[in-house]
Amino acid sequence: MLIIRNRQELKEAILKQKKANKTIGFVPTMGFLHEGHMTLVSHARKETDFVVMSVFVNPTQFGPNEDFDAYPRDEAHDAKLAEEGGVDILFVPTVEEIYPTELATKLHVIKRVSVLDGADREGHFDGVVTVLTKLFHLVNPDNAYFGQKDAQQVAVVSGLVEDYFFPVNLRIIPTVREADGLAKSSRNVYLTETERKEAPVIHAALQLGRQLIDSGETDEAKIVQVMTDKINEQTSHEKIAYLALYSYPEFIPVTDWTKGIIIAAAVKYSKARLIDNELINVKRR
Amino acid sequence: MLIIRNRQELKEAILKQKKANKTIGFVPTMGFLHEGHMTLVSHARKETDFVVMSVFVNPTQFGPNEDFDAYPRDEAHDAKLAEEGGVDILFVPTVEEIYPTELATKLHVIKRVSVLDGADREGHFDGVVTVLTKLFHLVNPDNAYFGQKDAQQVAVVSGLVEDYFFPVNLRIIPTVREADGLAKSSRNVYLTETERKEAPVIHAALQLGRQLIDSGETDEAKIVQVMTDKINEQTSHEKIAYLALYSYPEFIPVTDWTKGIIIAAAVKYSKARLIDNELINVKRR
Repeated sequence: MLIIRNRQELKEAILKQKKANKTIGFVPTMGFLHEGHMTLVSHARKETDFVVMSVFVNPTQFGPNEDFDAYPRDEAHDAKLAEEGGVDILFVPTVEEIYPTELATKLHVIKRVSVLDGADREGHFDGVVTVLTKLFHLVNPDNAYFGQKDAQQVAVVSGLVEDYFFPVNLRIIPTVREADGLAKSSRNVYLTETERKEAPVIHAALQLGRQLIDSGETDEAKIVQVMTDKINEQTSHEKIAYLALYSYPEFIPVTDWTKGIIIAAAVKYSKARLIDNELINVKRR
Repeated sequence: MLIIRNRQELKEAILKQKKANKTIGFVPTMGFLHEGHMTLVSHARKETDFVVMSVFVNPTQFGPNEDFDAYPRDEAHDAKLAEEGGVDILFVPTVEEIYPTELATKLHVIKRVSVLDGADREGHFDGVVTVLTKLFHLVNPDNAYFGQKDAQQVAVVSGLVEDYFFPVNLRIIPTVREADGLAKSSRNVYLTETERKEAPVIHAALQLGRQLIDSGETDEAKIVQVMTDKINEQTSHEKIAYLALYSYPEFIPVTDWTKGIIIAAAVKYSKARLIDNELINVKRR
């Protein structure tokens, strides 16, 4: 595995692969890698010839009240995992390498961002599309890999790619789960024993919602109520932060139940806020 | 020459050239082609293997008071000139082909646009960078060709390319001139006989400014005054709309006289407003 820190070096390494007619898979990350990232890498390895992973904590996607400096970083650990996972190039640029000058032209996301987690994070997705535009141009990937766990981010990125005809296939990789259905997350370790035992109800509730929609139910209030009741059969959570249905990837109210739909949940426990979602009628490529 | 109207068809035709290791030269235009465009094509032909020209009157770069529908169009004429000039692909998309959906993410130019012609055309350059981002992704050119005549547009586009690491070389092609120095323009036909005889003074004045800077003059007011006096030796123009010096491509006041500088002029005649500029210390590639 090559570790590259410099834009020019990266472009040359990629050009070499392109000239040999190799397809490029790209896994953009903010580092502090875990199993979720490595699942993306294993999909990239299966589907493309050459895998590039970026590790870059992107300052522009942190809000004024979010702590960029405190974001966890561990390059040695990341490099070890990436190498073991079969990454060919690990791109680890500095902030100056990605933002050498103040931008003369800004990207601003105006759709898909005003609900769910996006509602409280103004400017967050502007930073996401800004850094991805830069990285897509540097890496020039055939496929780029994103986890379905961050469904709103995926929707925003797919909007960017469709709006501007980026020559890249977005691959949305389904969330990896524990045996009992709980979505894997680095936050799960903050659950108490009882909370951990009960938390799989989030996935179970979303599955219930999916079944209702699959069987033809189109009463949104009813679907949400059934899911809410299911989660509230358990009692260890503090509250349901949201439990909502939207068209996907538009994130507007569902009108056509045969098209893409997302059911998204966020549930607050004593020391962890867990999110999960189900995509219905959504092609992942 | 292939005339292509469809994005997918264009991408396939280009991929075929890329696979044969051909370099692509791109000349984006709004059609109604004239000698200026064809000069760009002839540079593209010299420097690249395969030349793509787009003819697309881009609605998003027209302001609310600018008449998109009235913009002149003549596809048959354009196709004839393009073919004669050696264009390999003429891409002539519909508005729906370039803007199939309302944008979820907007591009907004915040620098280089608040002076000269940009000052009166709010949103104009947002439309320019939007369509060029789309076209660059579709055509994936090695080189893209722009005329120095539209120096502010070139500055904005080079900002876009640098900000987002677009893998394209911008080639700024010097303005083509009549034997007496007047910049060629479709507007020159609107000059009266006297105006036409006197109009070369614009270029002469800019040359005078260049000579002063080249010889070490750094008193901006003095340079502008000398050029103003030179233009006003003639009397047929109505007024000088602007005559200004900026750092280039930043379009901010000059502080370092060894770096890029633009001297730009707009002069109003009875039925034509002529623009011209000189670039100093600017690499064109």
